[in-house]
Amino acid sequence: MAEVIDIDDPADPRVDDFRDLKSADRRPDLPGRKGLVIAEGVVVVQRMLDSRFAPTALLGVEKRRLELADELAEVEVPYYRASAEVMAEVVGFHLNRGVLAVAPRPTPLTLDEVLEPARTVAVLEGVNDHENLGSMFRNAAGLGAAAILFGDRCADPLYRRAVRVSMGHVLRVPFASVPDWPEGLDILRRKGFQIIALTPNPAAVRLATAMTGERVALLLGAEGPGLSEDAMRATDVRARIPMSPGTDSLNVATAAAMAFYERVRT
Amino acid sequence: MAEVIDIDDPADPRVDDFRDLKSADRRPDLPGRKGLVIAEGVVVVQRMLDSRFAPTALLGVEKRRLELADELAEVEVPYYRASAEVMAEVVGFHLNRGVLAVAPRPTPLTLDEVLEPARTVAVLEGVNDHENLGSMFRNAAGLGAAAILFGDRCADPLYRRAVRVSMGHVLRVPFASVPDWPEGLDILRRKGFQIIALTPNPAAVRLATAMTGERVALLLGAEGPGLSEDAMRATDVRARIPMSPGTDSLNVATAAAMAFYERVRT
Repeated sequence: MAEVIDIDDPADPRVDDFRDLKSADRRPDLPGRKGLVIAEGVVVVQRMLDSRFAPTALLGVEKRRLELADELAEVEVPYYRASAEVMAEVVGFHLNRGVLAVAPRPTPLTLDEVLEPARTVAVLEGVNDHENLGSMFRNAAGLGAAAILFGDRCADPLYRRAVRVSMGHVLRVPFASVPDWPEGLDILRRKGFQIIALTPNPAAVRLATAMTGERVALLLGAEGPGLSEDAMRATDVRARIPMSPGTDSLNVATAAAMAFYERVRT
Repeated sequence: MAEVIDIDDPADPRVDDFRDLKSADRRPDLPGRKGLVIAEGVVVVQRMLDSRFAPTALLGVEKRRLELADELAEVEVPYYRASAEVMAEVVGFHLNRGVLAVAPRPTPLTLDEVLEPARTVAVLEGVNDHENLGSMFRNAAGLGAAAILFGDRCADPLYRRAVRVSMGHVLRVPFASVPDWPEGLDILRRKGFQIIALTPNPAAVRLATAMTGERVALLLGAEGPGLSEDAMRATDVRARIPMSPGTDSLNVATAAAMAFYERVRT
């Protein structure tokens, strides 16, 4: 049962982990200089409580505490209760969502752990936009993709903005890094994954035709540059989403959603 | 050939239509109190110049003028040339994209005009988020949907943010209003469109199975509330994208993309 502790003074050091949220992703005092993981709002806090991310504290208004009563009955972390005004002073801006939870970063999952039960995974290269990463996890959760893997030059999916845009699914869809990029893709191949590069290249095969494997790994690069030639060469097939001439490539999270959809549509 | 006019004084009244862009969507002095249509950046300005939106002026730095040289050779509107600093003073913030075009709102297209050549259209109800609207037009352009139709309670697709997020495709994908909502959907039915409501309801038919018409109109509601019961009743079939249990419905622009993709995948 979460203990309720009233916070009246915004300077109270017990809520330091919630302080100045706009810079919460930079924590030079922590290992790897990376911030703690922040969940914002009732739904995302519920998802965190139902994930491998174990919160150490919550900060919120009384109304949100009541909405979370069932979940809070199950955990032994403090609920720092404050007025909306005190919360705004602590976090640095007015927060509509009215409740936050904070968790340390857990030990990263291994590639083997995330691949074991997986039928469909996305593998990202150079995707460094936190909003796109968040949307990617949301789409993976909604359409049943099992995991997101990170190759080179991707942003941190645990940044506050990515967690928020994902609606908390970053906390639930497993992710791991591919070591030794792009050669490490061989690990997936040995596990029976068909490795498909998504490209806007009109010479590539249509996605619906290309996707023949029982297990599928979809490689996606950032909008604009796309996948590197090295990554392309490490794949089994290059596939395209049929696009109208004279348009831009789709947003990377939308392109991924299309491929996830192709796996579950019938 | 666009005439080049140097602007040194940010208060110059000739650039008034570019002034204070953050509030440019409110123009109490104009018909309907709606703002002019603003294109930002080289690509979106190119799309405006290639659309039914006829710009009355451009404002930009010299570098962007050179990038647009081919297009500017074809038009008879002034290019107000300014430094990045003067531009920032006029528009109210620093604008990375370095060039703007402004156009009056043209006469709205009629439903008949946009439906005539259409095979796939989206029909929106209650979609009032400009970013979602922008993404919807971008996805329609990329995946070859012919038009976007507006039922009740939708936001204005010509707002600055919608134009920007759409990457200018709001200016090129035709749109029109459905009169007399939702009874007006009968106009589409009489033209041979199969009218499909997209819903997260697990009892609905899978989208891939439901979509049997030669011409298809996809009804989409806002995330959260979804389509009204009245709109639902006016459709021929209710279809769902197969979703994982315990997840949220997809973003409305992503859901639309999935339906557009279903139409072109093979």
